[in-house]
Amino acid sequence: MCVTNDRVVAFQGMRGAYSEQACRERLPEYTLLPCRSFEDVFSAVEEGEAAVGMIPVENSMAGVVSDSYDLLAVRNLHIIGEHYLLVRHSLLGLPGADLEGIRAVYSHPQGLAQCQAFLRRYSWTRFSVYDTAGAAADLVERGNPADAAVASELCAGLYGLKVLKRDIQDCRMNTTRFLLMARDETTPPPAVACKTSLLFEVRNIPAALYKCLGGFATNGVNLTRLESRPVPNSPWAYHFYLDFQGRPEQPSVQHALDELKFFTTNLKHLGCYQESRKPEMPEGDPAA
Amino acid sequence: MCVTNDRVVAFQGMRGAYSEQACRERLPEYTLLPCRSFEDVFSAVEEGEAAVGMIPVENSMAGVVSDSYDLLAVRNLHIIGEHYLLVRHSLLGLPGADLEGIRAVYSHPQGLAQCQAFLRRYSWTRFSVYDTAGAAADLVERGNPADAAVASELCAGLYGLKVLKRDIQDCRMNTTRFLLMARDETTPPPAVACKTSLLFEVRNIPAALYKCLGGFATNGVNLTRLESRPVPNSPWAYHFYLDFQGRPEQPSVQHALDELKFFTTNLKHLGCYQESRKPEMPEGDPAA
Repeated sequence: MCVTNDRVVAFQGMRGAYSEQACRERLPEYTLLPCRSFEDVFSAVEEGEAAVGMIPVENSMAGVVSDSYDLLAVRNLHIIGEHYLLVRHSLLGLPGADLEGIRAVYSHPQGLAQCQAFLRRYSWTRFSVYDTAGAAADLVERGNPADAAVASELCAGLYGLKVLKRDIQDCRMNTTRFLLMARDETTPPPAVACKTSLLFEVRNIPAALYKCLGGFATNGVNLTRLESRPVPNSPWAYHFYLDFQGRPEQPSVQHALDELKFFTTNLKHLGCYQESRKPEMPEGDPAA
Repeated sequence: MCVTNDRVVAFQGMRGAYSEQACRERLPEYTLLPCRSFEDVFSAVEEGEAAVGMIPVENSMAGVVSDSYDLLAVRNLHIIGEHYLLVRHSLLGLPGADLEGIRAVYSHPQGLAQCQAFLRRYSWTRFSVYDTAGAAADLVERGNPADAAVASELCAGLYGLKVLKRDIQDCRMNTTRFLLMARDETTPPPAVACKTSLLFEVRNIPAALYKCLGGFATNGVNLTRLESRPVPNSPWAYHFYLDFQGRPEQPSVQHALDELKFFTTNLKHLGCYQESRKPEMPEGDPAA
């Protein structure tokens, strides 16, 4: 591995993206490598351009980021950490714009989904673009005062835009969970609380999912997430993504995994990593 | 209920939408009521403008339609049926357009997601709009031969567009599952195979999800779908949507539901309806 790339973190998006904010919070000493797509983030890490990739997997309001989950299945990076980011959206416009004159709003589909209650008050046309920060940057390029973007307030400063409305997200605890991805697996120090992530398909037997979860229940291993996604090109077959508290070396986890193997196919260990705390509710938040 | 609206079906989208195609396949004798949003479909049925609403809930490739699931939780319609539609996407352009000249592609986010492998071959800018058919209709309005839309071939005829490429979906068995929604619950005839749909939150106890599934496993009730979605304004709390084969009157199902009640809160019965067959693989399909 090239020494110069040891402290580079890849993320999807442009300057001002929420993924950039997550990188800055979690890895403040790292150099940032913006990538156009999630695939490019995975490739940057696989090819050594970056030591770590930071990818969003779930938002507390909008649910899973499907593309990220699907890449965990087909690419071969390991999860080495998780990070929770408190997301606060702003409506941004050109310096001369005002709320009454807006006709169209641009953002990432998740950005639009997280401000549904606010956006429903207006009959603006909604356009989904690949990135919240890209939506902000494009406002300047198009120069139309009837256009607005849902993005971070950080983008207002970066791109010279006006904040038309702050904190437009539906929920004051709008949080996104990110995963840190690397080529090599890590083993967290013995003293820290860990999570482990797995991917599997259930065998075609009666009550298969129930049986898969049995080893965890009877061995007292706490599941924190179970998510199903369609298997590409296998209609109505599902992968399951499972997160649990603990590490594979623990006897209770070993027993649970032994049982799991019996009822699954294509079981893939995605990683074991230190569990992160979810952010606290912000004080003095104006949203109800 | 007003007699004239007895045979009206509401769907989200414009003329040429896949939801319209589902309505025509399943309820060919019904009058079509196009609605702008899923909320409007629910409202049309609640207010008696339509007898039935047809809403997509899951695609075999792109996964769940989150907005539909979220409305099942907060609105009070009943599921009275399901329908599977085989989805075949085309790339449409203006009459003078050709594939080489395309620079931007417009579609519903699910439409773009279902053609990822095809779209990755090009560096087109992707724009998500509220509707595949709307994306097609807008091509005519903008009149830019560098724009294309991912939509049904039906739209080409309706809007006077050219088919630039047929069958661009990633998977030849690209199927969307629709639910038929009505104000009043129905009871399917005794002879037909049924599904039942539920919504619940798990109690905050160890191994809660495992315990919720236990009654189904031990009573031989077959689960066909388990889907989790965030509870609005309750960060990191989840609803579970559960479909199973059977009907609430069956003793085995009653036992399973009795157990389920013990481990859940906010258990909501969404409906019991005849199980539909998934479509067969189309013959002579060109896709690999």
